[in-house]
Amino acid sequence: MIRNTLYLPELREMLAEGDAAGLGEFCTAIHPARTAEFMEGLDAAEVWEVLRHAEPMRRAEIFSFLEQPRQVEMLETLDPQEMAELVADLAHDDRVDILQDAEPQTVEELLPLVPDEERRDILRLSAYPEDTAGAIMTSEYARLNEDDTIDAAVEAITRSLREGDLQTINYLYVVDKADHLRGVVSVAQLLSALAKPAMQIGDIMNQSVVSVDVDADQEKVAAEVARYDFAAIPVVDAEHHMLGVITHDDVIDVVREEAVEDAQRIGAVDPLEETYLETSLLTLTWKRGIWLIILFFGALLTAIALRGYEDRLAQWAWLVLFIPLVISSGGNSGSQSATLIISALAAGHISLTDWSRIVVRELVQGILLGAFLGLIGYGAARMLGVASFDAAVVPITLLLVVLCGTLTGSLLPLLFRRLGFDPAIMSTPFVAGIIDLVGIVIYMTVASRLLAA
Amino acid sequence: MIRNTLYLPELREMLAEGDAAGLGEFCTAIHPARTAEFMEGLDAAEVWEVLRHAEPMRRAEIFSFLEQPRQVEMLETLDPQEMAELVADLAHDDRVDILQDAEPQTVEELLPLVPDEERRDILRLSAYPEDTAGAIMTSEYARLNEDDTIDAAVEAITRSLREGDLQTINYLYVVDKADHLRGVVSVAQLLSALAKPAMQIGDIMNQSVVSVDVDADQEKVAAEVARYDFAAIPVVDAEHHMLGVITHDDVIDVVREEAVEDAQRIGAVDPLEETYLETSLLTLTWKRGIWLIILFFGALLTAIALRGYEDRLAQWAWLVLFIPLVISSGGNSGSQSATLIISALAAGHISLTDWSRIVVRELVQGILLGAFLGLIGYGAARMLGVASFDAAVVPITLLLVVLCGTLTGSLLPLLFRRLGFDPAIMSTPFVAGIIDLVGIVIYMTVASRLLAA
Repeated sequence: MIRNTLYLPELREMLAEGDAAGLGEFCTAIHPARTAEFMEGLDAAEVWEVLRHAEPMRRAEIFSFLEQPRQVEMLETLDPQEMAELVADLAHDDRVDILQDAEPQTVEELLPLVPDEERRDILRLSAYPEDTAGAIMTSEYARLNEDDTIDAAVEAITRSLREGDLQTINYLYVVDKADHLRGVVSVAQLLSALAKPAMQIGDIMNQSVVSVDVDADQEKVAAEVARYDFAAIPVVDAEHHMLGVITHDDVIDVVREEAVEDAQRIGAVDPLEETYLETSLLTLTWKRGIWLIILFFGALLTAIALRGYEDRLAQWAWLVLFIPLVISSGGNSGSQSATLIISALAAGHISLTDWSRIVVRELVQGILLGAFLGLIGYGAARMLGVASFDAAVVPITLLLVVLCGTLTGSLLPLLFRRLGFDPAIMSTPFVAGIIDLVGIVIYMTVASRLLAA
Repeated sequence: MIRNTLYLPELREMLAEGDAAGLGEFCTAIHPARTAEFMEGLDAAEVWEVLRHAEPMRRAEIFSFLEQPRQVEMLETLDPQEMAELVADLAHDDRVDILQDAEPQTVEELLPLVPDEERRDILRLSAYPEDTAGAIMTSEYARLNEDDTIDAAVEAITRSLREGDLQTINYLYVVDKADHLRGVVSVAQLLSALAKPAMQIGDIMNQSVVSVDVDADQEKVAAEVARYDFAAIPVVDAEHHMLGVITHDDVIDVVREEAVEDAQRIGAVDPLEETYLETSLLTLTWKRGIWLIILFFGALLTAIALRGYEDRLAQWAWLVLFIPLVISSGGNSGSQSATLIISALAAGHISLTDWSRIVVRELVQGILLGAFLGLIGYGAARMLGVASFDAAVVPITLLLVVLCGTLTGSLLPLLFRRLGFDPAIMSTPFVAGIIDLVGIVIYMTVASRLLAA
């Protein structure tokens, strides 16, 4: 983390002098995200000392921009009564995330001190399983009824805004008495209707609301929001009861989080739940080790395969020289194909129905790339002193291995998607491992046929 | 692409019968994104035939949800006058993207038919270089002056909304006569101020506006918006003139696009400008080939290195069996480290200043993983008939190679970031290639020392 040390000495001086005016201005004059950033060098107690000089709403806002480990540390170490008041003011989705990372005993201590209504909300939102729509939604959205007048709606919204109870007013959701989602009014529609204050919300609302199910996977929700360019999407249960709202900023977080997870899967690391530095060394070692061991046993097969060709390797010793070259060329072309296909699947650029086009494309690329590498390989074999006829083993092998790489690398992720698994499990090292083994067999078979002829 | 064929027969029937009422309802009753989706099976002319039955604003909205290649095809093949009218109604940032993908002669034909003001806007936005803030911003945002009253502001905004000239009203930007960005008013603030219609915008505006420079890299803009949880961010030039706005949906697109590009770089493919299926086979082969050839020449070095050890390989023939195992273990652990570090850098979870912590962590992981793989490797060597003393070459080599993999895989991306390059260029195949070579040298050195002793 790059610490912003620009204001630190001034901040510490103001704290030492108890400069309430200066600290108060620091909390209000700049964007809360910047205030939070400037405090990164302070310890938990010092941060709180600064935040005391902000209004409760502003305080919660600045707090929400601190790094999550710092937020958790503050809840765990500072005065429980003050922290409970802070928790009550936080955004409903954020505070659930923070409390889930805190020690259970901190949560047990804090929760009873949080006002009843807020505590019930925390418990309700905490109940949804991780990575679902329910786990990232918030309960702070504007709810209207069909028979509200425009005037009454505006009044209700401004009251909620004053109390800090809304995270988004891009859309105002219309529910019936049983809380079923009936329609949506955009803030633009509301503004446009201001001239007719007595009109009812039901007259201007849009009845075709796109919503997501509370159990939906967060990745699917993000894809949906990205497709419709929504600023927020409502979350409903099976009976279409309105449960919450997912806002654009949460969607961006999900997209970024999933990109990191996909990259880790592609690189044969079991996705980390926390950031690289936050993950304990043992967890990290385990999440890599499990894949490394699987790949290691795969690689052991190459040793066993090679043992079957020991007499040929003794007879034509120069074959050994090109073992790494052959398997890495296959592995690299396979990794490339796997990367292209996995990322195109993740981005929604291709789907299973495109499989035949993909096969043709990878076939052509495999032949072109394999033939070209084969040409260079033949030259290299000649330069290393291999006889002109014998050296033909290298280009023939390279063509076949690269072709095998592009086809395996592209088809395995598609197969995994077809079987309902995450295609990224077909990590590039996994693909490379398979091609290592196949590559050895191709190499030795080509050599035996050609050289024994 | 999964085509949605559910409505196709009905749509074709309505088209054949000229059922204006049915087609009109199809264009209005469901979300425009869904309307666009249902028309994926139609050809360009049929799509336009359907869209004729929608109001111009709705027509433009539905059109904006079609796949980009289809949009381009429609502009290129349908009546220029009608297409020019459509272009005039499109979102200002979207139409620039579409026109940049169309044939130059289509653009030349269409532009003169587009109204003056809109044409100037297209030319202005087209001028910004790709992947910068300027290239993704839109010119449709709400502009107010400090001395506007609340009432006048609301009236101006509702007028603009009626004309479809606003892409976002989350924030209303306050500019002076020379177009300098002076402040920002959120729509929430505006709603809350409705009760005091004679108050001026200057009294409620927020003067600390976070903006981005028009030349800023789109990836940095996305990171900024994600950090501040903004729904939109204003774009300014060096003199702080307001030029445009980037909205949350464009940011999501950038984040998704950059994730795909990063994955491709990590997988040693030069990032594609279009999707996998849209990219021509020759381009695709070239973008892979260039890296594959670089990696191939790297791998050739392993052949040369191995030639230096030919006599030892002849003396202890069993050493050959473990060549693929040794280099793949090093390559895999190196790929894992490179993936972890590159994705953590991209997500902002680590920075260069953390390098010493990273080295320690990778050192510990390398020792743990190397030792464990070494244990299995020793067992495997024994099982394949290697003498108990000789077999020690395998675990010692594995420990050193895996350690070398974790350190190289983590340090190379950091080094590249330090040198100002994209750390993802240190693709996992590249890291693996380096470790292949180092692995061979370590293996042969360990073997020579131990077996000759």
